[in-house]
Amino acid sequence: MKETLQKMQAHLGKVRDLMMAGAVLSWDRETYMPQGGAAGRARQLGTLSQMAHELFVSDEVGQWLETLAPYEAEQDFDSDESSLIRVTRRDYERERRVPSELVGELARAASLGQQTWVRARQESDFSIFQPSLEKLVALRIRWAECFDYGESIYDPMLDFFEPGLTTAKVQAIFDEFRPPLVELVAAIAERQGRVDAGCLEGNFSEGAQWELGLEALRLMGFDFECGRQDRSAHPFTTSFSSNDVRITTRVDPRSIASALFSTIHEGGHALYELGVSPALDTTLLGNGASMTIHESQSRLYENVLGRSLPFWRYFYPKLQARFPHFQDVELETFYRAINRVQPSFVRVEADEVTYGLHIILRFELEQALVTGELAVADAPAAWNAKMESYLGLTPPNDTLGVLQDVHWSGGMIGYFPDYLLGSMLSVQLFAKAREGMPDLLSQIEAGRLADLLAWLREKVHTHGRKFTLDEITRRVLGTNLSPQPYLNYLRERYGEIYGLGS
Amino acid sequence: MKETLQKMQAHLGKVRDLMMAGAVLSWDRETYMPQGGAAGRARQLGTLSQMAHELFVSDEVGQWLETLAPYEAEQDFDSDESSLIRVTRRDYERERRVPSELVGELARAASLGQQTWVRARQESDFSIFQPSLEKLVALRIRWAECFDYGESIYDPMLDFFEPGLTTAKVQAIFDEFRPPLVELVAAIAERQGRVDAGCLEGNFSEGAQWELGLEALRLMGFDFECGRQDRSAHPFTTSFSSNDVRITTRVDPRSIASALFSTIHEGGHALYELGVSPALDTTLLGNGASMTIHESQSRLYENVLGRSLPFWRYFYPKLQARFPHFQDVELETFYRAINRVQPSFVRVEADEVTYGLHIILRFELEQALVTGELAVADAPAAWNAKMESYLGLTPPNDTLGVLQDVHWSGGMIGYFPDYLLGSMLSVQLFAKAREGMPDLLSQIEAGRLADLLAWLREKVHTHGRKFTLDEITRRVLGTNLSPQPYLNYLRERYGEIYGLGS
Repeated sequence: MKETLQKMQAHLGKVRDLMMAGAVLSWDRETYMPQGGAAGRARQLGTLSQMAHELFVSDEVGQWLETLAPYEAEQDFDSDESSLIRVTRRDYERERRVPSELVGELARAASLGQQTWVRARQESDFSIFQPSLEKLVALRIRWAECFDYGESIYDPMLDFFEPGLTTAKVQAIFDEFRPPLVELVAAIAERQGRVDAGCLEGNFSEGAQWELGLEALRLMGFDFECGRQDRSAHPFTTSFSSNDVRITTRVDPRSIASALFSTIHEGGHALYELGVSPALDTTLLGNGASMTIHESQSRLYENVLGRSLPFWRYFYPKLQARFPHFQDVELETFYRAINRVQPSFVRVEADEVTYGLHIILRFELEQALVTGELAVADAPAAWNAKMESYLGLTPPNDTLGVLQDVHWSGGMIGYFPDYLLGSMLSVQLFAKAREGMPDLLSQIEAGRLADLLAWLREKVHTHGRKFTLDEITRRVLGTNLSPQPYLNYLRERYGEIYGLGS
Repeated sequence: MKETLQKMQAHLGKVRDLMMAGAVLSWDRETYMPQGGAAGRARQLGTLSQMAHELFVSDEVGQWLETLAPYEAEQDFDSDESSLIRVTRRDYERERRVPSELVGELARAASLGQQTWVRARQESDFSIFQPSLEKLVALRIRWAECFDYGESIYDPMLDFFEPGLTTAKVQAIFDEFRPPLVELVAAIAERQGRVDAGCLEGNFSEGAQWELGLEALRLMGFDFECGRQDRSAHPFTTSFSSNDVRITTRVDPRSIASALFSTIHEGGHALYELGVSPALDTTLLGNGASMTIHESQSRLYENVLGRSLPFWRYFYPKLQARFPHFQDVELETFYRAINRVQPSFVRVEADEVTYGLHIILRFELEQALVTGELAVADAPAAWNAKMESYLGLTPPNDTLGVLQDVHWSGGMIGYFPDYLLGSMLSVQLFAKAREGMPDLLSQIEAGRLADLLAWLREKVHTHGRKFTLDEITRRVLGTNLSPQPYLNYLRERYGEIYGLGS
């Protein structure tokens, strides 16, 4: 049995090496690759994806999994070995349904798509990106049709990023969340004059912003021997092993908040990947478990921690030291500014309260795109109409509208809901962490974030892909993911800032 | 037949994609990878190399080659199709002899070796690198033993970088070259006071040096849409497609010459890779033909052009504009300074005349290492003894001695002679180019390098790996590579500078 497991692990180690090589090639494409490299890179990524897939779905993996079933049943559910077999089986059963050629084709289209998306953004012209998106949507539909989905063709797309998630489940949670959220947004809108975010605008040296971001990362516990930050058109995190995790950001000289909060957000993702048990490093379990859990980590650092008063009690003097602009700005003024609630165009720069509406918009548009209700050509208009209806704003151009997110250009459809679900989970996790560490806020005020990280490592990070979202929430929280704690958190933080009687 | 060829090309296209992916991973390791990534990167490169090799040496490739033999014979020798079959057969017959596991093991050892080499350099301590080098030498010997080599186990190593090259051939050329070279070095040594290179030293902004290098690359015709320059411990060039070619350099703030000539040298390599016919891009022929030809391009730009008076008549004002230090330095003084002949420690910064001795030293040491005459542990002492004997200098530390070159750390043994052979060829090629373009020097003085590049593209670059060194020299020069034109060139340029009556 041990021998079969070793054989399978050696085989899956190669699959993983090919996948990680693909991740390096994608990272390079987003950070340093000259334009001319686009065609070659798409070919290379297509081949890597297709070969990794062929290797993974080979018959022998199926035979090993069958042979190992009784062994798996004997092992502790939590053990690395049992989890490896269990999760590999889940992946295998999903991937066996998809032809390897389609996987290769999707990878090539995604690689070319990201290039046309960058150009379309530069020119703020959706029509440059439209043919790529049409191809990607068609391929993603072909991919979803490989599955026996229930009600919606959107289901397998959600499941890909969050195993077990369905359109109906997301809908139920969003239905519970949306009315009170809209109410909160409206209540705050009536008191808009109460917060002035003018101090966040100015002319902020890109170099000093970069250094501030690195300082925040160091404070969070990001290990620069095992990772780095670079620039890209859209911030992202990628991992090549638990000892080499890369994040990216972009810098806007006119805004102090843009790069910094993106850096902290990606830093949260990175800490998760860096915290995966080294024992899982050469296996398919050596990454974060799902995108909801991933976003719970990034949104926890970005918002629950990163926009909190205790954090800024410690970190504001560091920011002031780098930017004389803030010498005469009170901490309280700054804190209120970074928490100003104001409908805006760009999701990644949205405040926490209106953020949910950005996600709900995407959840609805994605469904319309993949069910064929909405033609890709009509996506910009549909986007703008929903922005007007949900946030009262019409994007002045496509870069601030339908072209703002990188996801679709990479063939990623069905990811967005996880941002909001992850935000919900982040609040539940932080509350649980405080239960175990009553002085957590004082620690944060003192710039000590190590205990928080240790708690997250133990409860979440170290397990990699061993457990599902439900398994994690049940074992860490003793309950499931729910929107109510998140709503209470939003009401409390923003109620206080905007003086809404509770 | 066409169908068999297409099948083979599709298959080899995948082999190439895996190889190019490996090149991206190696580039990243040398430029941006954090230290923590070393172990994972070695695994990934091992898997990519091994899988590419397995795919390449599969039985079906052999069957296709057999099927295609009559078709090949019918085609024009120069055609892409005939060349593809011919060169693939040569590669296939070589690679079939090597077990894929050994290829993977070499790739892993080389990847780890480069990391320990960088650390050893930083600490200037050979013992850090010694175990890696022992392993690499042993693996390279195991690799060479896969071949029926004739006189020397060093032969297959030479052949790997320059198909057909043998120890005896190199020895014969070096035997012809060395006595007159030593004579020239001695004659110049007697007149050492004639050239003062003091103006090259100072404190030169790294940013301005970087910009100057980019300006030189633009002038050479390097297309930044299809490539870029980054920093690394040792300058190198790598290609991921004929539209994505990367070079690296290092910058020494105390010396104006170090980064600049490295940049021009690597730029010469890059132009070669950028000039390969796009039709060869997805084939195994889509790179430079051999390392001798490659070095003929880099050394032509670095020296024959890059240290010539016509070039600096045009480029010196550009340099002066960036470095006020040179406002009062005459062009003639600068020109003599960059051509000062003086025994020095580091090959890549050596003058053209003493350069050959650096190569001969490595040629001898490599043979001693792989025949077992010299133990790896004794390499630093053997290096230093040869430096003392050939150049009259003893390196003060290992970084300036045995640790200076990147090659061995990457498992590359048998490459060095190609630098000197390439230098010889560069002079022959440049002379031939002048025959066809009598006003070439005036063009260079006017900063017009496009015709030279067009000539090199047509005669050399566009063919990729279609032709061997001998095939190229015979068709372009009508003769073979020879040391005599190079000796004459050195005597002429340095005779004039040092006032040696001819």
